[in-house]
Amino acid sequence: MLAVTILGNNSALPAFDRHPTAQVVTLNEHLFLVDCGEGTQIQIAKYRIRRSRIQKIFISHLHGDHYFGLVGLITTMGLLGRENDLHVYGPAELEPIIQLQLKAGGNHLPFKLQFYTLHDGMTITEDKFEITCFKVFHRIECYGFVFREVRAPRRINPDKIKLYSIPTPYYDWLRWGHDFVSESGEVIANELVTEPGSGSKSYAYAADTLFERSIACRVKGVDLLYHETTYLHDLAEKATKRFHSTAVQAATIAKEAGVHRLIIGHFSSKYEKLDPFEEEAREIFPSTDLALEGVTYRV
Amino acid sequence: MLAVTILGNNSALPAFDRHPTAQVVTLNEHLFLVDCGEGTQIQIAKYRIRRSRIQKIFISHLHGDHYFGLVGLITTMGLLGRENDLHVYGPAELEPIIQLQLKAGGNHLPFKLQFYTLHDGMTITEDKFEITCFKVFHRIECYGFVFREVRAPRRINPDKIKLYSIPTPYYDWLRWGHDFVSESGEVIANELVTEPGSGSKSYAYAADTLFERSIACRVKGVDLLYHETTYLHDLAEKATKRFHSTAVQAATIAKEAGVHRLIIGHFSSKYEKLDPFEEEAREIFPSTDLALEGVTYRV
Repeated sequence: MLAVTILGNNSALPAFDRHPTAQVVTLNEHLFLVDCGEGTQIQIAKYRIRRSRIQKIFISHLHGDHYFGLVGLITTMGLLGRENDLHVYGPAELEPIIQLQLKAGGNHLPFKLQFYTLHDGMTITEDKFEITCFKVFHRIECYGFVFREVRAPRRINPDKIKLYSIPTPYYDWLRWGHDFVSESGEVIANELVTEPGSGSKSYAYAADTLFERSIACRVKGVDLLYHETTYLHDLAEKATKRFHSTAVQAATIAKEAGVHRLIIGHFSSKYEKLDPFEEEAREIFPSTDLALEGVTYRV
Repeated sequence: MLAVTILGNNSALPAFDRHPTAQVVTLNEHLFLVDCGEGTQIQIAKYRIRRSRIQKIFISHLHGDHYFGLVGLITTMGLLGRENDLHVYGPAELEPIIQLQLKAGGNHLPFKLQFYTLHDGMTITEDKFEITCFKVFHRIECYGFVFREVRAPRRINPDKIKLYSIPTPYYDWLRWGHDFVSESGEVIANELVTEPGSGSKSYAYAADTLFERSIACRVKGVDLLYHETTYLHDLAEKATKRFHSTAVQAATIAKEAGVHRLIIGHFSSKYEKLDPFEEEAREIFPSTDLALEGVTYRV
């Protein structure tokens, strides 16, 4: 299962009850937080995201609307007694910024906090997923991320699973290709109760960027693409000057990359109504939706 | 006019739609922000505080629930084109923490941002007010503040002001003791249209602290005292261990200091209902009210 839950879809200034950028990517049992604007911990509570299950946090760049909520989230995790390691990926200056604040507050975290410096092409490979980092084009160093299942989970055959009386808690284990071993030691081969899964799913987050065709190469063919659309088309010049994109430009990238579906966000505070973003983008790429707070977009 | 508007009344973890500590102190035409937990800029917008009129910000200590919202507020002020100087008073580490983040984001503020390091007994004296800083007793270096009018504004005599046909925009000018000069150069002496004001008003903010009787000396006789009450009386031992106070302890300080009125806040996230705080405190000091978000307490 691959899904994206939007916690914040606005650009720098909070407005119209929209919040700065934050998203949760769910990749089977793994939870990743992508960007963490001010107030993200409140949005996490509001939308009942299981904070303790967030393993890795990715910070695209060091504009405040993408990370000012990180230090608060980390200290809250500490106050709530988190024990699992937390891995934070971001630009090099992120670690000293967070550590300076933890030190000034006399905070002693009960969990291990590990930082990693992002670079173009950086890849995090684990058993079931792969995350690749790509540079985008913003006023300061900024990265996008592609989340990809390394292999798709297998599908349970409901008739066969009943036949062998395998208990429900083992289904996920089976989906990931393992055999079932009963209490008496009897082995049920995985192939007897499951069928091959569908193709690997993928999601790309293109962060804050100006319109740049090479991004289409970095997100080629993903199932779901998030691209920023700070402005509407009439402000294309302003968008470029501020290293941001328009709805038309986001849709153009989606079309050129041949993605299945596009979601757009990072709306400027100057816009109260968001429908025009969807309308402009759909003229070029019909499978476009607004990235709305509290909504989960499943692949 | 002296008034306090509560923007956040909760302790470390946001809960029950209560926010971390922040207050706005209005002293005649001056606005001061006292502490600035995460999300304060959103609370400022929600309660229509005129952000641009905030001249000075006081940060009591460097636990996140008292200052994690400061960097976001400062960058937002920058994005909105603030021009007036902003003066920030806090512990020494505050300046490098904020500057490091401004630098990482490539922020260039259009206004002058000036930091001052707090110390016990530090006094800021201006024409119409005086702010004194006093050390309280917390896990890390922490300060309270007393805001005091240096002189009270004079009262307009409604009959006399009509007699001399003085336009409304000049009333504030008259309240502060100045004479009125008409377009034709005629001088109306202040004493002809105003009467002496009442005594100087005062407000004390006792920050986060454990119960310590010497605080009563520092806030002696103020009109309004804010004292933290993280816990109820049954958790007095826990309060002390964590360098916090109970409702009974806050009321005891108010009583010993002979203040006129007490407001209590910084409630632990473990309490959904706040009435018991008020009940416990009122048994010792009847003029106690809960510090509720969005409410302005006038002196």
